[in-house]
Amino acid sequence: MNPDVAWAVWCGERQRRIEDVLERVLPAAEAAPAQLSRAMRYAVLDGGKRMRPLLAYAAGELNAAPPDVVDAVAAAAELIHAYSLIHDDLPCMDDDTLRRGKPTCHVAFGEATALLAGDALQALAFGVLAAAALPDRAGACALLADAAGVRGMAGGQAIDLDSVGMTLSLPELETMHRLKTGALIRAAVHLGAACGRPLAADAAASLAVYASAAGLAFQVVDDVLDVEGSAASLGKTAGKDVAQGKPTFVSCLGLRAAKQHAEALRLEARAALVPLGGSARRLAELADWIVLRTH
Amino acid sequence: MNPDVAWAVWCGERQRRIEDVLERVLPAAEAAPAQLSRAMRYAVLDGGKRMRPLLAYAAGELNAAPPDVVDAVAAAAELIHAYSLIHDDLPCMDDDTLRRGKPTCHVAFGEATALLAGDALQALAFGVLAAAALPDRAGACALLADAAGVRGMAGGQAIDLDSVGMTLSLPELETMHRLKTGALIRAAVHLGAACGRPLAADAAASLAVYASAAGLAFQVVDDVLDVEGSAASLGKTAGKDVAQGKPTFVSCLGLRAAKQHAEALRLEARAALVPLGGSARRLAELADWIVLRTH
Repeated sequence: MNPDVAWAVWCGERQRRIEDVLERVLPAAEAAPAQLSRAMRYAVLDGGKRMRPLLAYAAGELNAAPPDVVDAVAAAAELIHAYSLIHDDLPCMDDDTLRRGKPTCHVAFGEATALLAGDALQALAFGVLAAAALPDRAGACALLADAAGVRGMAGGQAIDLDSVGMTLSLPELETMHRLKTGALIRAAVHLGAACGRPLAADAAASLAVYASAAGLAFQVVDDVLDVEGSAASLGKTAGKDVAQGKPTFVSCLGLRAAKQHAEALRLEARAALVPLGGSARRLAELADWIVLRTH
Repeated sequence: MNPDVAWAVWCGERQRRIEDVLERVLPAAEAAPAQLSRAMRYAVLDGGKRMRPLLAYAAGELNAAPPDVVDAVAAAAELIHAYSLIHDDLPCMDDDTLRRGKPTCHVAFGEATALLAGDALQALAFGVLAAAALPDRAGACALLADAAGVRGMAGGQAIDLDSVGMTLSLPELETMHRLKTGALIRAAVHLGAACGRPLAADAAASLAVYASAAGLAFQVVDDVLDVEGSAASLGKTAGKDVAQGKPTFVSCLGLRAAKQHAEALRLEARAALVPLGGSARRLAELADWIVLRTH
């Protein structure tokens, strides 16, 4: 099979697979309290690129993890991501009205229900992970908690809030994003790998370099797309970083240098995978996908 | 020692102990991002009755759980409780300004930081539990996730939101509170017991009856105090349930019958402990404390 076609098939199969898994772990639409159940489903299903689940499935291939074990960690990472988007879009945060091409959760369900839907999705993520058939479920929960909390995603969002209207240096900007989006992306990779046989120390170190570079590349490209993209292609409000006075890789480096930075990170991510051999193929293709995407 | 004095000493020792544990698991006040760390500490430290930790320590005594193992589950339950109070007080929820005798977290730190502090505290709760020295850490995480999520606390809060201005029957009101406050109280009891040797099936069943009755009694008394107490004694806004048109045990039963209901639940909780013998002494005293408290 043509490698591009094989990749597209792999990717589509796993995107459909995670959709089924998420559908299964979420409460049924009619489950009481129905408004909350519906808001949770609305925020999670039928949308998103599922990048974190794809990273988890790809990392699982490094050491032959059974896909039905990876399902749980892929779902947990995506549930944390979905909850963070709901809370990020609330009026007291980014006050956004469009997400994944739909009205944001609080526009559709009201602020209080959206807040609770985010809260319940975070709890569900840990519940799914704690019940998974992993070699070390508690270790996985600890890893996810660290990635989601004050030393990870929530901490990065707090730095983001404090940075509005400020000029950050490139290292400061990278630190913020290593927490805000990077921590959960790295967790998705490591959790996926944790579903299989343990990796040798040097392989784990290579994977960490990959996850860090790929996570940062994702954010650089996000900043570029926020400038170059349209709401129609992005499925969310374009140009909002500039409108909100947020420092971005584009405001820090300029558009041209930001694109070059993303490309350098893509190459760094791919280079880190070389010692891992053919089983890292999907991770390498994901680095390309992250950087070369248009939405 | 006089039993009342012995109880007060036991209670005070454990309240100080959990304060130290919480202090230790929370980020340092100066830890970056400092505003978020401070908001988390503000919402958790120096306040509250620590009922859930006390229940965990008391349940641990049933089967000789080492207190330093119970520390982690007591802290996890209290962190979930503290996060729920932050989010509950937000303008889009109960819009409250006074909690534990202090301005609420969003009044002190702004809504966005308060939202993130709650989010980060939930993650921290699972992180603390996942790293505990429990016999079954993953099982404990699954239990806490269930108690905090759509089938527990968050679900109960959603029902609470939907009930404003409505008249609920006693069974409907009880269902709401079994989720909203009862689920986490039951979890605190069961997590405390999970820190020691496994209980026999009949002892575990007795403990479940106790936890359910004590949790419901707590809420009935809360509703009575909301009517009879003052902001000064409660440390939070009094009379707010009535002002917000929320159904309560007092609005449902009347003040006199609500007090009788609380007393009946106290006796039910105590009766359930009889087969457990002397090691259940502190749990029995906690049932009294929950019902006979004035704030």
